[in-house]
This record gives sequence, C-alpha cells and structure tokens, in this order.
Amino acid sequence: MREVFQQELREVQDRLVQIAERVESTIQKAVTAFGSSDVALAEQVIDGSAEVDELASGLDELTIDILARQQPVASDLRLTVSALRISSSLERMSDLAEHIAQLARYRYPESAIPQGLRKTFSKMGDIDIKMASKLVALLREQDPQLIEEIRDLDDALDELHVKVFEKVLSEKINADTTGVVDATLASRYHERFGDHAVHITKQINYLLSGDVQ
Amino acid sequence: MREVFQQELREVQDRLVQIAERVESTIQKAVTAFGSSDVALAEQVIDGSAEVDELASGLDELTIDILARQQPVASDLRLTVSALRISSSLERMSDLAEHIAQLARYRYPESAIPQGLRKTFSKMGDIDIKMASKLVALLREQDPQLIEEIRDLDDALDELHVKVFEKVLSEKINADTTGVVDATLASRYHERFGDHAVHITKQINYLLSGDVQ
Repeated sequence: MREVFQQELREVQDRLVQIAERVESTIQKAVTAFGSSDVALAEQVIDGSAEVDELASGLDELTIDILARQQPVASDLRLTVSALRISSSLERMSDLAEHIAQLARYRYPESAIPQGLRKTFSKMGDIDIKMASKLVALLREQDPQLIEEIRDLDDALDELHVKVFEKVLSEKINADTTGVVDATLASRYHERFGDHAVHITKQINYLLSGDVQ
Repeated sequence: MREVFQQELREVQDRLVQIAERVESTIQKAVTAFGSSDVALAEQVIDGSAEVDELASGLDELTIDILARQQPVASDLRLTVSALRISSSLERMSDLAEHIAQLARYRYPESAIPQGLRKTFSKMGDIDIKMASKLVALLREQDPQLIEEIRDLDDALDELHVKVFEKVLSEKINADTTGVVDATLASRYHERFGDHAVHITKQINYLLSGDVQ
C-alpha cells in the first residue's frame, strides 16, 4: 500500500513537470509569435491552450483521488495540497502565454509592439522563457538555488514592467492608441506570468522547509 | 468526533462567508474611490488588503489541518478542497479591488477615468459590487439560482470590457496616454474580478452536483 502511494506521489510530480514543460514550450512560442508577428505560431499557441487545461484538470482529479484513498498526512499531505496549487498556477501561466499570442494575432499583419518598446519586450520574453525553464528544473529536482534564481528573474521582470509604463507615458515612443493598449496589456501579462512562477516557488519552499514564504 | 468534524466544516464555511463580505466591502470602497478620485478611501482599501490575505491564509491553514486530522472523503473532501480554491479566488478579488484603488491613488488629484468612459466604468463597478454581494449569499446559502445570476453579471461585465476597448480605440473619447493606460488596466481588473467570481460559482456547482462545470 505504502509503495503504491509513493508511486502515486511520483506520478503527481511527473505530471507537474510535464505540465511545466508544456508551459515552457507555450511561452517560447508565444514570445516568438509576439516578437515577430507570426500569426501561424500565435494560432498554434491558442489552439494548444486547452491541452494544458486538460492536463491540469487530470492532475487535480488524481490529486483529489489520492487525498480520498490514501489520506496522506504530514509532508505527503503538504505535497498533495501543493500540487493542486502549483497546477492552478501553471494553468494560469499557460493562459497568460495564450493572451500574449492573442495580441500578436489581433494586430496581424501589424506588430502589437510599438517600435520603441521592442527591446524591452524582447527582454521580458527572454526572462519568461528562462523562468519557465527553471520552473521545470525546480519541479524535477527541488533545488533551493533555483527558487532564488526564479525570484531574481521576477524582480528583473517587475523592473521592465515599470519601464514599459515610463516609456509609454513619456510619449517618446510615438505609439498610437492601439500600441499603448497592447503594450499595457502585454506588460501586465508578462508581470503576472512572473508572479505565478514566484507563487510556485513559494509552494516548493513550503514543501522543502514547511515555511509558507 | 463526527460532530466536531461537522462543526469544523461549518467553521470553514463561515470563514469563507466572512472573507467574501470583506471582498464585498473592499470592492465597494475601491469602486467609489475610483469613480470619485477619493484618495483617502483608496488608501483605506490599499491598507486593508493585507487583512484579507491573512484571513485567507488562516482559512487555508485550518483547511489543511482538517485534511490531516479528519481525513475527509466524498462530499466532505470536496468541500475541503473547494474551500482552498475559493479562498484563493477571494484573495485575488481583493487584490484586484486594491489595484483599482491604486489607479485612483496614482492619478490623484486627476481622475483615472477618461471623461467618455465614466458611465461604462460606473456600470462595471456596479456589476462588481452586485457580484460580490451575490457571492456572499451563494457561500452562505448555496442557492443554485445565484450561480446563474453571477454568470449573467459576468457576461455583462465582459461586454462592457469589449466596449471599453472599442471606445478607447475609436479615439472618440479624447483620452491622453495616461487615460488609455489607466482605462486598459482598470477594465482588465474588472474583467478578472468577474472571472474569479465565476470560478467560485464553478466550485459551488461542483459541491452541489459533483459536476466540474
């Protein structure tokens, strides 16, 4: 019985890694589609988003089933509850990647990014991709060093988010109204993407140390 | 033992109602602060936001403690897991109310709302308040009729969200760049507020019917 249970907990972990890998490939494609106005790639992201939702729902069902049958306590209970929360954050990260792809599709054949903000958004996209990749590694290996690295990336993302607004409001970037709307939304999506990554690091930290921060 | 358990589940429900009441009063104040550029009220919302986070964390601790000690199954397990999810959505709703209040504070003594969008945002704010009030009732009474009513309100909110962008992009509302940024963010916050309310109705529906939709 105990062995079955440990196998089920490994299954939970494997599925979290699998979903995080999907988020990583989704944000990669979304960032590329956004940066290069690649509408076909944007549509691939949008079409694929339901699959992450299904994977997350499947994992939630498994987790609740484990709670019901195995009635875990202590660290096993923490792991099971954290899995529910992590899957919810991964699902939101996939949604946010989809939103970024949608901006590229809406504005096609124009670019969703005002000229003067291309570098800033390119940096934000690179950070998102790095964060997603480190999340995969964190879920696989639980290396506390990765928690710090993800949080540092989130700080960098927050700085760029502020910079987008400074640039937009300085009116030096010569964006039209559509460009201002798109830049505002895109920047917000990137910022939230980072918040969810940090939220997941908190869950892992809680698993490793029992500490909620 | 069984009686203690039922009492604890009632405690979970009472705390959810209590948090929802806080969200209701928070969104009321945030909407008023945003509509009338009332910076003192906005600051009250911002200062009070940590309290909702604490209430939600306290509820999560209680819920995990119940999972560990009582090892609920079937509908009791569903209720316990749903409580974790509902508290997470309520916490986000409170954060979004805080973001709306922050917009009012940032732009003070100016208004965060471009002139041509005041009516639209006033309607969005009214809908948010109605939704929050119906959520309190739903968490208290689990009346399925309220689920429908909240979803209808969310549809109305989504229509207004589209309308904000139409108006902003038509450039007839004569908004400056700051106005466009603020309107874009505010509209997004209202839309997400509604999404979380619907997310909670799905949890209640799941409790009532076992159906995940």
